[in-house]
Amino acid sequence: MKSGDIVSCGFGGKKRKGTFITSRDGMSVVKLDSGYNIGVPPASCTLSEQVLTGPAKRPEIIQNPNLPRLSIVSTGGTIASRIDYRTGSVTSQSDAAAILQAIPELGKIANYTTKSLYTILSENMTPVIWQELARAVFEEIQNGAEGVIVTHGTDTMSFSAAALSFMIDTPVPVIFVGSQRSADRPSSDNAMNAVCAAKAATSDLGEVAVVMHATTNDDTCSIHRGTRVRKMHTSRRDAFQSIGIPPIGSVAYPSLETNLTGDAVKRGTCKPALHDKLDELCALVYFYPGMSPDILKSYEGYHGLVLAGTGLGHVSTRLIPVLRKLTESGTMVMMTSQCLQGKVCDRVYDTGRDLLEAGVIEGADILPEVALVKMMWVLGNERDPTRRKDLLQTNLKGECNRRSLHGL
Amino acid sequence: MKSGDIVSCGFGGKKRKGTFITSRDGMSVVKLDSGYNIGVPPASCTLSEQVLTGPAKRPEIIQNPNLPRLSIVSTGGTIASRIDYRTGSVTSQSDAAAILQAIPELGKIANYTTKSLYTILSENMTPVIWQELARAVFEEIQNGAEGVIVTHGTDTMSFSAAALSFMIDTPVPVIFVGSQRSADRPSSDNAMNAVCAAKAATSDLGEVAVVMHATTNDDTCSIHRGTRVRKMHTSRRDAFQSIGIPPIGSVAYPSLETNLTGDAVKRGTCKPALHDKLDELCALVYFYPGMSPDILKSYEGYHGLVLAGTGLGHVSTRLIPVLRKLTESGTMVMMTSQCLQGKVCDRVYDTGRDLLEAGVIEGADILPEVALVKMMWVLGNERDPTRRKDLLQTNLKGECNRRSLHGL
Repeated sequence: MKSGDIVSCGFGGKKRKGTFITSRDGMSVVKLDSGYNIGVPPASCTLSEQVLTGPAKRPEIIQNPNLPRLSIVSTGGTIASRIDYRTGSVTSQSDAAAILQAIPELGKIANYTTKSLYTILSENMTPVIWQELARAVFEEIQNGAEGVIVTHGTDTMSFSAAALSFMIDTPVPVIFVGSQRSADRPSSDNAMNAVCAAKAATSDLGEVAVVMHATTNDDTCSIHRGTRVRKMHTSRRDAFQSIGIPPIGSVAYPSLETNLTGDAVKRGTCKPALHDKLDELCALVYFYPGMSPDILKSYEGYHGLVLAGTGLGHVSTRLIPVLRKLTESGTMVMMTSQCLQGKVCDRVYDTGRDLLEAGVIEGADILPEVALVKMMWVLGNERDPTRRKDLLQTNLKGECNRRSLHGL
Repeated sequence: MKSGDIVSCGFGGKKRKGTFITSRDGMSVVKLDSGYNIGVPPASCTLSEQVLTGPAKRPEIIQNPNLPRLSIVSTGGTIASRIDYRTGSVTSQSDAAAILQAIPELGKIANYTTKSLYTILSENMTPVIWQELARAVFEEIQNGAEGVIVTHGTDTMSFSAAALSFMIDTPVPVIFVGSQRSADRPSSDNAMNAVCAAKAATSDLGEVAVVMHATTNDDTCSIHRGTRVRKMHTSRRDAFQSIGIPPIGSVAYPSLETNLTGDAVKRGTCKPALHDKLDELCALVYFYPGMSPDILKSYEGYHGLVLAGTGLGHVSTRLIPVLRKLTESGTMVMMTSQCLQGKVCDRVYDTGRDLLEAGVIEGADILPEVALVKMMWVLGNERDPTRRKDLLQTNLKGECNRRSLHGL
């Protein structure tokens, strides 16, 4: 047997089908259809189907020049993943062209140019990569793409979508899409997500968004604003949720009927612009009872600090002197809430008022992760401290709701 | 006019009612019924109702010895809060006896002993206070209380409920309750929450739980397991949600009909025991793209570290060498997910497998905050590294689901 062969193995009184990966420590390692690996004695497995050797024939990419022109920029992640048959783990190996070949349905929606920027798992994204991605996407917009699809790992997709929301003013849709289950699993969401993303990218939208499964069924994808979305489950296909606002649209499957809410920014609203500076010397700190002030001291020299406080935006009173020192030495400190939903308001309780007095800025209802990205962006693009503070407290790309500041 | 007077003030073309707080900078500071303060010219306000001077007559506490005996242990928070008319902000000033006086309905459910342990806002809770609270609650159980109610600020209530879940084996209900809106606001949830908590404390439950509004209406409170609950909104009355499991019960209001699910631990299941050691040298670190390895280096010497990673439980590859150094020097490192829902599984992707190889322990579906508390408890109560690791990966008080480890 060789890597990739389909085998049938008996264990625990049952026969189960899987893919032979390798022999290790005298056992056969087999990837089950569920996506999990087991080790079984070699004798318990029989060969069902041999893997094809040599390069498999890939379907030709058919482009229809009468359809809208989209661009696919690939960064990696599960939507572009293949199993590494050496280790049985999933690695990011595929690129934009391969996605197009793997999902022929895409050809009915648009014609595509493809750009393979990275093949990384998204936990390895960095602000520098966000910048390169922003420039690449902006170039596609400048070159006349009617929409841009960014394939991306789901782990940090919401960070990247927020980063591009701030860095690019876009007249066309910039759609992030990923997949929670790799293409080799029967429950994979990669094809439906990609097709719905392409449809959203040809829609009347004019902002950065994330398109992913809305339910556990293969019936709808949600269109989430790039600054309002969060991965809320480790493995479910409907893991992505809009926080603080409803999704800004949906794409039904397989009809591909697309709806945008009145809140969605419409195609052509913005003139294209790129503001790609970021200040990387920013951090996100999650408060918990018992946190030592020494932990905050280690952020001396940072330019920006986002706190995920409790409730309406609190930390322990004993941390406040260190925060005052940080703000006095020029660190911008913004408060968000680990509740994730609802607005920060530091004018109700004593600890909050002390925080404001120490120079901490209230983050309204911005998500902690989005606040970190915004901090990097504001500090990278504006030098004046007063204007920085104003920008941090102003709704720039739908990331917070300032209008109802007093409405809780 | 003096502090506490009810006044009617004209501004923005409208008359609005509020409470006169103080004069500051030539303006009258008035607390509106919405809970917010405004500054208006003194001439725009007229007196509607004078505050009573002298101590207000408090209703007598009527105890019925034929009812079950509960104990109220107060720690502070909004349920015990009053407005400070000097500053207009809410401070924690009331105690257990005052709660009983303020909410006479409680007298119909049980007779009470009261113990005022603290009057602090819960963001100022610490592990040392959790220990004192655990000892106080345990003493009430030893003294024959048929249930214990702990009044607590909502900000860190879920941390404290988790801490007591691990520290106390209880045969009777230990019910945490708080309030999202202070008693002076018309939308206050304090009375209904307290009454439902008292009812839950007389129920057939035998574990630590949180009882708070289930909906935005005054119709039901949910009973949440102490290790599975999280504050998910900064201000809504239904902010508390069970994560990973449904609530373990409910109390209807005003009927007070109480239901427990089959999953709830029943009264009398556990023998009372106190395990009140905690190792405070533990921290929770929230990962984000671009996090510098230097941040993790500042946790050298910590005994335990909980990571809130992305997705199935990942951090950037460049952090892994520092994590390996930490585990090799004896720091226990446990991975949880900032998704909050779903299980960590580090055997699917490359970065996860590298984390396991570096000695990081998978946290199953435990909440990051609960994992921090559990880490403190395990390291405080067990010295053997292998048994520590086993305990961290074992479901002790319903905090994680290990049975379906392979089911994602």
